[in-house]
Amino acid sequence: MATFQSLPGFREFYPEALARRNHLFRCWRQAAHVYGFQEYDAPVLEPLDLYKAKSGDEIEAQLFSFTDKGGREVAMRPEMTPTVCRLVGAKANALKRPIKWFSIADFFRYERMQKGRGRCFAQFNADIFGEAGPEAEIELISLLVQCLRGLGLEAADFFVRLSDRNLWFYFLEALGFDETQAKGMLQAIDKYERLGGEAFKIYTDAHGELAPERREKIEAFLAIKSLADLESVVGELGGENLTARLGDWRKVLGALEAMGLGEFVSVDLGVVRGLAYYTGFVFEAFDRKGDLRALAGGGRYDNLVGKLGGPDLPAVGFAIGDMTMELLLEQRGLLPDLVSKPDVYAVIGGADERLAAFADINALRAGGFRVDYPLRDLGFGKQFKAATESGARLAIIYGGDELARGVVKLRDLAKREEVEVPREQIALAVRDFLSGDD
Amino acid sequence: MATFQSLPGFREFYPEALARRNHLFRCWRQAAHVYGFQEYDAPVLEPLDLYKAKSGDEIEAQLFSFTDKGGREVAMRPEMTPTVCRLVGAKANALKRPIKWFSIADFFRYERMQKGRGRCFAQFNADIFGEAGPEAEIELISLLVQCLRGLGLEAADFFVRLSDRNLWFYFLEALGFDETQAKGMLQAIDKYERLGGEAFKIYTDAHGELAPERREKIEAFLAIKSLADLESVVGELGGENLTARLGDWRKVLGALEAMGLGEFVSVDLGVVRGLAYYTGFVFEAFDRKGDLRALAGGGRYDNLVGKLGGPDLPAVGFAIGDMTMELLLEQRGLLPDLVSKPDVYAVIGGADERLAAFADINALRAGGFRVDYPLRDLGFGKQFKAATESGARLAIIYGGDELARGVVKLRDLAKREEVEVPREQIALAVRDFLSGDD
Repeated sequence: MATFQSLPGFREFYPEALARRNHLFRCWRQAAHVYGFQEYDAPVLEPLDLYKAKSGDEIEAQLFSFTDKGGREVAMRPEMTPTVCRLVGAKANALKRPIKWFSIADFFRYERMQKGRGRCFAQFNADIFGEAGPEAEIELISLLVQCLRGLGLEAADFFVRLSDRNLWFYFLEALGFDETQAKGMLQAIDKYERLGGEAFKIYTDAHGELAPERREKIEAFLAIKSLADLESVVGELGGENLTARLGDWRKVLGALEAMGLGEFVSVDLGVVRGLAYYTGFVFEAFDRKGDLRALAGGGRYDNLVGKLGGPDLPAVGFAIGDMTMELLLEQRGLLPDLVSKPDVYAVIGGADERLAAFADINALRAGGFRVDYPLRDLGFGKQFKAATESGARLAIIYGGDELARGVVKLRDLAKREEVEVPREQIALAVRDFLSGDD
Repeated sequence: MATFQSLPGFREFYPEALARRNHLFRCWRQAAHVYGFQEYDAPVLEPLDLYKAKSGDEIEAQLFSFTDKGGREVAMRPEMTPTVCRLVGAKANALKRPIKWFSIADFFRYERMQKGRGRCFAQFNADIFGEAGPEAEIELISLLVQCLRGLGLEAADFFVRLSDRNLWFYFLEALGFDETQAKGMLQAIDKYERLGGEAFKIYTDAHGELAPERREKIEAFLAIKSLADLESVVGELGGENLTARLGDWRKVLGALEAMGLGEFVSVDLGVVRGLAYYTGFVFEAFDRKGDLRALAGGGRYDNLVGKLGGPDLPAVGFAIGDMTMELLLEQRGLLPDLVSKPDVYAVIGGADERLAAFADINALRAGGFRVDYPLRDLGFGKQFKAATESGARLAIIYGGDELARGVVKLRDLAKREEVEVPREQIALAVRDFLSGDD
């Protein structure tokens, strides 16, 4: 007899595990709604070319890709961004701007499995299309913070590192780098946190020498931790682009400060996000202890809608993954016991009383109460045990004598107290009891 | 410039379409909760053998199946039943019985597309494991009815056709069929509705002649429409198995009658459900007009958990698909306008007032109010237009003069009335306004 197992890297969600995941989804959805984002969804399976067009042919190695029975090259989606760009691009003129959209969906990557990384994971994605100014970043970073605060995480638990690929390009330009050199340097910066000074080898191997004074200035730039530091560096270097961009930084940080979210956001130019399609601000959320992978990441990608066949449309977005987030919540004891319990458990005398109970159970359920009962005839003792184990607060007892008088007993399972209630008043009595100690 | 499209048979859900689908999911989840079912979820991608073990090798032709980068034969799930059998089977001894589980998930079949059938669709699946008696059928058929009633459908809109493969086998046995002949006859019965008398050719081609008096009795059996008819046929034929099985029928129909659901359920032995793994009662839900495919289907499958490597565990389950259901709701005008609207729209004088607005907007959102505002500075006229178009009922107006006095204006967008409110009382005033006319 074969015993079947799920594929490596794919999770099964038994009810307790699913309740935890759904708690994340519910909090994220709630945050998106209060921010005025509209939910969309899209196919799990997409044409492979959609991902090649965005990320190049080499992306295929990380994908669950195959040829379908109609000869189409297809892939299970590894991320939402290309898909949402297609959806928005196809109806760009009909959609009211700014387009504020979110989704909660599964993604698939054929990768080596690690802590907090599986081959199938869920993400909350939020994006704003149609706003070229930093107002979109303000709204999204604020939403990101709310998505995590809604789960009970506070400034002691996490922070958002804010950086800016534009600022880097203007800064490197001011230091005399040409565009190719600047791109090469950003590839090095992307590894600086992990490799330290060794990272500059990525640059020098490809672009030749790096003058010590340039390297010093770059390392000083990487050490910037506040708007004041940034203002002083930009003030020294001057230049129109850098100065204008500093205005955008003041706007973003000033707005987040005004929202009371200043303590959640750090200036940190060490974040450049490897993905070359980002075109401005980029940001990542991390736990403060720093022992987990990034909780979330995002940034501006103004060219992607156009690149994927749509009109030119500025865009900013971020994604939160479920696996690292759940690890953090578990560490912090922020995953409540969430398995749903019945409100009421029906204790049923025997086969004769069962039909009366069915009528009431069905009416209570139609009225929104969660009701459970033993499928099989059992003795009263076993039924009361089952009622208590179910977590229900109230039992309704269907005894023959009481039914003959048109009543049932309601039992408070915690206090072990019983009252008689006429059958036609059961719903009212249950409602009163359940709301009584809320 | 390439223009990308989704794959044929895969749906994209723009916000209005997704709101409709989420309405279905919300109603189904709510029904499952009041019935005490626990939600689970499982991988979208599974080992191909799981489906071959259940349905035979020929199933592969209908699947999105492929070899993954690790050389594994895998398939995107076409149904939930094998997976849920594996989950329950693997922990059968640890799970409290009866095991009442549900899920809402996407499924994939490489099929010809038709009205109400795509290559990717969602299903609500509900199953009870561990209950061998018809009490499990009672609970599930009742849940099925509630899932549809919760969407606004009534007995004039749909009904559940109840049949029974056991009853068929006992009946055919009483007519003198052996087991192989009986199975052959059920294959013919499965096509009887579509082909009429021609369907018997499926039987005679494989098993030889069908005596006219046998055929007559089978067609009379197919014509049964009530428990009374059934009782009279069984009374005539007699036999222990048939008589005992009639007791189960009385239990199921009596219970559903007691719940007030009698009008939703028809005795209809024309339903046998082609899938050979069903082992007892089978049922399908249809719209009354009969111009749509089945809305839902299910039945008992007592052997499948064991067949898939678990212990012997009796099981009953059903699934509702989202596509046909949505067609029916659309026909009946039961898909409400569901796109979410903000509670409040903030109208902001200019850059100076924006920071004050940010503080209040963030506090309101953290308090659960849905708040939107113009990302860019706009004139008051354009902002009021946007506020009205957003569907918000209330605007908060941030003017320089008012802010200097520590107040804002609240504007009832329907009545076009304004009041001044101190800034520290905004949340209270918004709550009062929104709850005032609920």
